[in-house]
Amino acid sequence: MTDIQSPPAASNPAVPGVLALAHALIACESITPATGSVFDCLESQLAPLGFEVSRFLAGEAPDGPVENLFAIRRGPAGSKHFAFAGHLDVVPPGEGWTSAPFAPELRGDLLYGRGAVDMKGSIAAMVAAVAQVPADAGTVSFVITGDEEGPARYGTLALMDFMRERGENPDLILVGEPTSVHRLGDMMKIGRRGSVNIFLDVEGVQGHVAYPHLADNPITKLVAMLAELDAIVLDEGTDWFQASNLEVTDLTVGNPAHNVIPARASARISIRFNDLHTGAELGARVCAIAEKHGGIARPVISGEAFLTEPGVFSTLLADAIRAETGIEPELSTGGGTSDARFLKDMAPVIEFGLCNATMHKRDEAVAVADLEGLARIYVTVVEAALKA
Amino acid sequence: MTDIQSPPAASNPAVPGVLALAHALIACESITPATGSVFDCLESQLAPLGFEVSRFLAGEAPDGPVENLFAIRRGPAGSKHFAFAGHLDVVPPGEGWTSAPFAPELRGDLLYGRGAVDMKGSIAAMVAAVAQVPADAGTVSFVITGDEEGPARYGTLALMDFMRERGENPDLILVGEPTSVHRLGDMMKIGRRGSVNIFLDVEGVQGHVAYPHLADNPITKLVAMLAELDAIVLDEGTDWFQASNLEVTDLTVGNPAHNVIPARASARISIRFNDLHTGAELGARVCAIAEKHGGIARPVISGEAFLTEPGVFSTLLADAIRAETGIEPELSTGGGTSDARFLKDMAPVIEFGLCNATMHKRDEAVAVADLEGLARIYVTVVEAALKA
Ligand SMILES: [Zn+2]
Ligand SMILES: [Zn+2]
Repeated sequence: MTDIQSPPAASNPAVPGVLALAHALIACESITPATGSVFDCLESQLAPLGFEVSRFLAGEAPDGPVENLFAIRRGPAGSKHFAFAGHLDVVPPGEGWTSAPFAPELRGDLLYGRGAVDMKGSIAAMVAAVAQVPADAGTVSFVITGDEEGPARYGTLALMDFMRERGENPDLILVGEPTSVHRLGDMMKIGRRGSVNIFLDVEGVQGHVAYPHLADNPITKLVAMLAELDAIVLDEGTDWFQASNLEVTDLTVGNPAHNVIPARASARISIRFNDLHTGAELGARVCAIAEKHGGIARPVISGEAFLTEPGVFSTLLADAIRAETGIEPELSTGGGTSDARFLKDMAPVIEFGLCNATMHKRDEAVAVADLEGLARIYVTVVEAALKA
Repeated sequence: MTDIQSPPAASNPAVPGVLALAHALIACESITPATGSVFDCLESQLAPLGFEVSRFLAGEAPDGPVENLFAIRRGPAGSKHFAFAGHLDVVPPGEGWTSAPFAPELRGDLLYGRGAVDMKGSIAAMVAAVAQVPADAGTVSFVITGDEEGPARYGTLALMDFMRERGENPDLILVGEPTSVHRLGDMMKIGRRGSVNIFLDVEGVQGHVAYPHLADNPITKLVAMLAELDAIVLDEGTDWFQASNLEVTDLTVGNPAHNVIPARASARISIRFNDLHTGAELGARVCAIAEKHGGIARPVISGEAFLTEPGVFSTLLADAIRAETGIEPELSTGGGTSDARFLKDMAPVIEFGLCNATMHKRDEAVAVADLEGLARIYVTVVEAALKA
């Protein structure tokens, strides 16, 4: 089916090519929460390169257990510490694939398989890159979780606890999420919007529509509440962020009786917000509006907004991208959330990786040239960052 | 269990008392759509009184078949025609009855059983009443369906077709719905509000909340639409009607994904309206608002408003009530709908019957004194109406 070779045994010190590394990782089925073989595979790739590999399980069902891996190759005393971060778990493949999602297959210039771009291909490029970086250039680490696509409760947060307990403090962190859009290198992410989901409930008094004075329709209050929320302009955006945005994502009453005023009505809203706001402030604001209309609001903050101000890190990454591809990358803060929302508390963090067109879709695939190009960019970035 | 006797056989010309008549009707289980034994029972009560009884089935599953009964006792040529109308079907009894719902039981002054007030007790009073009215006083008929509590598609409408085909045109119709509230005689209904349910749908474009510019949130449009609908003041009421009223009765999206803007949102509204409106006009008005906000509306009219202007009919009924109870009845148009919404196309119609406190509830019960009082009121009304 393919001409890809198995990855070398851990005893083989030769560094395999990025394609073979990616192939080996994709071949290990690892739907969130991931544990086991896919981590064995990565460990077998890193150990020969001089990395000290730590692995541990965290959490319990239903959100766990999750496997996490921290690997470090220490440079000379006092040297800088550059960390790669990412995830080995993948979203479920779904139906309709041309080839089996966990049997990686090279067709033409593309390697197909779940995780090809999000983000086993990027992790393969990280491994191939560090193989090219001399061990005495500085400290390099891998911060890799088995739960980024899921609740992420026992993943990167547990890894950060693990690192802090051991005094491992990276100076810069590069997350390998697939940030490129049309061509490798056209976009990096220097921040992410925050996200808060808010559950709205209004209790009324059930009754017959013919006797509305004996009832209290909760839908009337919910509609007024949502109309006020929909009318809010949170901000106009900033230099680096688009405007914050509120969407009502669900409405629930569930009243089958045409002649009955229901007892309860609910809604759910999602706010994606920039660094002019915090989740707590937005939650409080929505709570006040909900209460004004006789309801209650329950905010659940998924992540705060953050920005790694453009500077040394983004410049050296842009330089590396330009050198490889000739493209000037856009510095974006758009899109969804990633584990960068946690890692930003530890060190400046930027995300850069493969093209995301097929991510989370069937027939997810990565161009072999992109795997190789990304590995070369990562080499340049690591060397520049350790010198910076 | 009780001291009630079985109803007399059809061959017995003696007229039984109203309590025995009610007992016999309640003992025939007749959940909507009703057919069979309960109609046999009524026929056996009417035939000895000189009524020519016609029965027929109408409709098919799931809303049928429904049994309908038309019985007429003709007076002298040219005499007036007074019709009693009602239903022998009952709503399901539900749980928790003290005695079996279809085993009528007299406890103290109350006769318990499903249908005691709604409206087998009233039908028993009609039968007991016509037994007291001389056959030569005028034409009296019974227009009795087995589906008033259900979709009512094959019930009173089919009876009206049956009557029209045979040229049976009553001058007045009295519907025996339980219109009394606290005491027998405190309320009659001289009209009913109309009712229209309207189904609202908005189609949008599904998308991720992080990329709202690629989606089109149907909930935003639905909320704006509902806010505009909730703000409408349809009218301030009339001399005989309370203000028309619009209630949103259901909201449906069904989106489990917190980060997804859904493709579709729906709502259902119910308007109860007075005779300043028609169902068609209100439907068109809501359709226009729905379209303005990018949605569609599908109105389903349950019934138009109607009013039997206070006059000869309400006066003779009020006189009869006052003579029996000493109470001045309120002339109301409140509450839900009834088959009077159909019958008003045939002749002036007024509704008057027992106390409705236990209607549709467990332990439905009627005071024996009310059964007897109602029968006496009906005697006076029929005699006055045939003379009027
Ligand atoms: Zn990812
Ligand atoms: Zn009824």
